[in-house]
Amino acid sequence: MYEGAVQDLIDELGRLPGIGPKSAQRIAFHLLAADAEDARRLAEALTEVKLKVRFCEICGNVAESEQCRICQDPRRSVAVICVVEEAKDVVAIERTREFRGKYHVLGGAINPIDNVGPDDLRIKELLTRLADGAVQEVILAMDPNVEGEATATYLARMLGPMGLRVTRLASGLPVGGDLEYADEVTLGRAFEGRRVVGA
Amino acid sequence: MYEGAVQDLIDELGRLPGIGPKSAQRIAFHLLAADAEDARRLAEALTEVKLKVRFCEICGNVAESEQCRICQDPRRSVAVICVVEEAKDVVAIERTREFRGKYHVLGGAINPIDNVGPDDLRIKELLTRLADGAVQEVILAMDPNVEGEATATYLARMLGPMGLRVTRLASGLPVGGDLEYADEVTLGRAFEGRRVVGA
Repeated sequence: MYEGAVQDLIDELGRLPGIGPKSAQRIAFHLLAADAEDARRLAEALTEVKLKVRFCEICGNVAESEQCRICQDPRRSVAVICVVEEAKDVVAIERTREFRGKYHVLGGAINPIDNVGPDDLRIKELLTRLADGAVQEVILAMDPNVEGEATATYLARMLGPMGLRVTRLASGLPVGGDLEYADEVTLGRAFEGRRVVGA
Repeated sequence: MYEGAVQDLIDELGRLPGIGPKSAQRIAFHLLAADAEDARRLAEALTEVKLKVRFCEICGNVAESEQCRICQDPRRSVAVICVVEEAKDVVAIERTREFRGKYHVLGGAINPIDNVGPDDLRIKELLTRLADGAVQEVILAMDPNVEGEATATYLARMLGPMGLRVTRLASGLPVGGDLEYADEVTLGRAFEGRRVVGA
């Protein structure tokens, strides 16, 4: 519908996840009206990210050198590895400031529909990291959905015989949530995982 | 939270309209995982759009030369000008294939809250186009909201004494909509604008 360059930009924006044709159009017109400098900075950020960013050779997290900041940090415990699906999950957990060990990013979860099996995930790399016996606990922090559960179960069975402590994050009611609106599976998990409080 | 280049990209994406921090992160990770070629094409489209695209010197629509395709098209009537707020609106109207005249893009609507007055819109340019008497009808196709109504009223008063036919797009129930869910203003307009049907 538009002339060359505008339509090209709308098409390219429309390929991004979560950006439909209307949003792509809105963003393209925003950029048309914006300073040339703003558009240049975005174009540069895109180019830079592909040039500079790679994946940590140890844990698979995003990194700007061979190893990510967390793997390079000597203050972080090497005795605990938290296994997550994606690099985004590392950031989510870091934000809690609760965890001071290392991570391992699988690069997804087992998903037969998308044809993702255990061999497509960084499981071999995880086993290599566990070989020297320094790791005492592996925390399975997959997403609480079908694919995450399948991946966690697979890993738990594989790691079980290795004499490690294998744990999963607790399921339950989200803090600030409303019991009435919790789905029955979450509520069921909250019952299962109930804890003794008070004297 | 992220290392340099990833965070830079998330920040730049987050400046775009309708992209919150979560979407920016999702898009950044999508691009990290995508082919370098995909990211390059998007960066190029961004750069190209700022280099190539300008605004038509006649109507203010987006154009890749001094005049837009519609102003250059000799098959389009010069007797009718459809006045719209934004270049996006031109595309929306073109999609209907109902209109074969020319356009005039105001570049916004009168909005005291955002400090947009008549002088900030391309109204002087519209009056210049009407000077030679070739135009017989001006269709006011502003958005059916407060700012659009204010702009249309302002233009109608200004154009009224010029001996032109000044029209507005019909307001009423959207096709495919549900009467029950129409707001009272729309329903009121639909009553006002009711038409005789049948024999």
